[in-house]
Amino acid sequence: MNLILLFKDDFIDENKVRLEDRRLRHILEVHRPLIGDGLRVGLARGLIGTGCITSLNDTSLEMDVSFIHPPPSPLPLTLILALPRPKVLRRILLSVTAMGVKRIFLLNSYRVEKSFWQSPVLEPESIQRQLVLGLEQSCDTILPEVFLRPFFKPFAEDEIPELIKDTLPFIAHPTTPEPCPRDVRQPVTLAIGPEGGFIPYEVEKLISCGFHAVQLGERILNIEAAVPSLISRLF
Amino acid sequence: MNLILLFKDDFIDENKVRLEDRRLRHILEVHRPLIGDGLRVGLARGLIGTGCITSLNDTSLEMDVSFIHPPPSPLPLTLILALPRPKVLRRILLSVTAMGVKRIFLLNSYRVEKSFWQSPVLEPESIQRQLVLGLEQSCDTILPEVFLRPFFKPFAEDEIPELIKDTLPFIAHPTTPEPCPRDVRQPVTLAIGPEGGFIPYEVEKLISCGFHAVQLGERILNIEAAVPSLISRLF
Repeated sequence: MNLILLFKDDFIDENKVRLEDRRLRHILEVHRPLIGDGLRVGLARGLIGTGCITSLNDTSLEMDVSFIHPPPSPLPLTLILALPRPKVLRRILLSVTAMGVKRIFLLNSYRVEKSFWQSPVLEPESIQRQLVLGLEQSCDTILPEVFLRPFFKPFAEDEIPELIKDTLPFIAHPTTPEPCPRDVRQPVTLAIGPEGGFIPYEVEKLISCGFHAVQLGERILNIEAAVPSLISRLF
Repeated sequence: MNLILLFKDDFIDENKVRLEDRRLRHILEVHRPLIGDGLRVGLARGLIGTGCITSLNDTSLEMDVSFIHPPPSPLPLTLILALPRPKVLRRILLSVTAMGVKRIFLLNSYRVEKSFWQSPVLEPESIQRQLVLGLEQSCDTILPEVFLRPFFKPFAEDEIPELIKDTLPFIAHPTTPEPCPRDVRQPVTLAIGPEGGFIPYEVEKLISCGFHAVQLGERILNIEAAVPSLISRLF
């Protein structure tokens, strides 16, 4: 937790917050501060600043907070990700949030196991938890938006044309000859398939929508390595 | 499992293997092949080819195998990684093996919890399991070497000078101004700190050995995102 993310409910006065939850326990165990110490704080969807500890015990911490500078710039990336298995999804949500992705579509694909869509990891509170962990990791305050799209075809036909407008639309596809470009400096829409890849119908559909197939080399990476690798290559 | 990795013990004849373990169960559950079908196989530390199934039931699978082409090129990278927490280590070993890293030093650092060095994840069989999963993922056959270095100072003083010879030595350090270079096309030694980072003494020690501090942007990434991001940026 490199930044303590604060929400409206944390405020007990205009510039004063009280923490009694997971964040307090983390601060006590990891930061081990004293009264008077400063901690980096951020206001959800707002500025970053400092919290000066005014009161601290095992069940409660109070800070006077002031907010000074804006959060880091978001990545100009819309990520379309075939829904990974639940455990992997949790970690990916944290990682891509930490990397600065602000718009994530979780999409069905032929090779996504149907049971994944029933996972409690997809409940809004569970998704939110991973996003907050990602922001706390990377000292950001802007929560990404996560959209569930359990039907491939209507998403491709009805939403993608609008979504990819004014962006470079790439689909990661290990068997294609074209390497993923580096340092593009333009907004990108990036589609990444499931374990085993998108099926040919899905790849063709996305290409017919305007996507370009790109690859990271002859190695087929696991999703957890592929997603940060692709993002880091592009930006 | 995009490739079935074969070891000497699997051979029951010169060009015939029998599988009865985890690989058989995976093949039955995921590939669901018939007799006569071909599977991609690779000989550990050797060539890649095809296995043609000659016999198959719930407890055993036999294939006639032939090996044709070499595995993908290794990355010219030596990775020095402050020992991550055990669960993270397992996943990182798989990911970096899939990416083609062939030499990994797991190093102590002030901020590495001592208990991590006692983890069963560090036992040779446990490490080997993750390396094999990484090779199966990326269709490679060359097992990386993994070295444990539980003492920072003697490693830095006695081994690093030889290790970094003829390589670009980088240390990932989020607060440094120099961005991580792209597409270096030279051998690299890359040092990545623990959660919370290397302490100043460690950073200075590595810099005095010849390392250059580089960063990936103002965001502090979790290790699981940082490692693939840095590798993908460099190569």
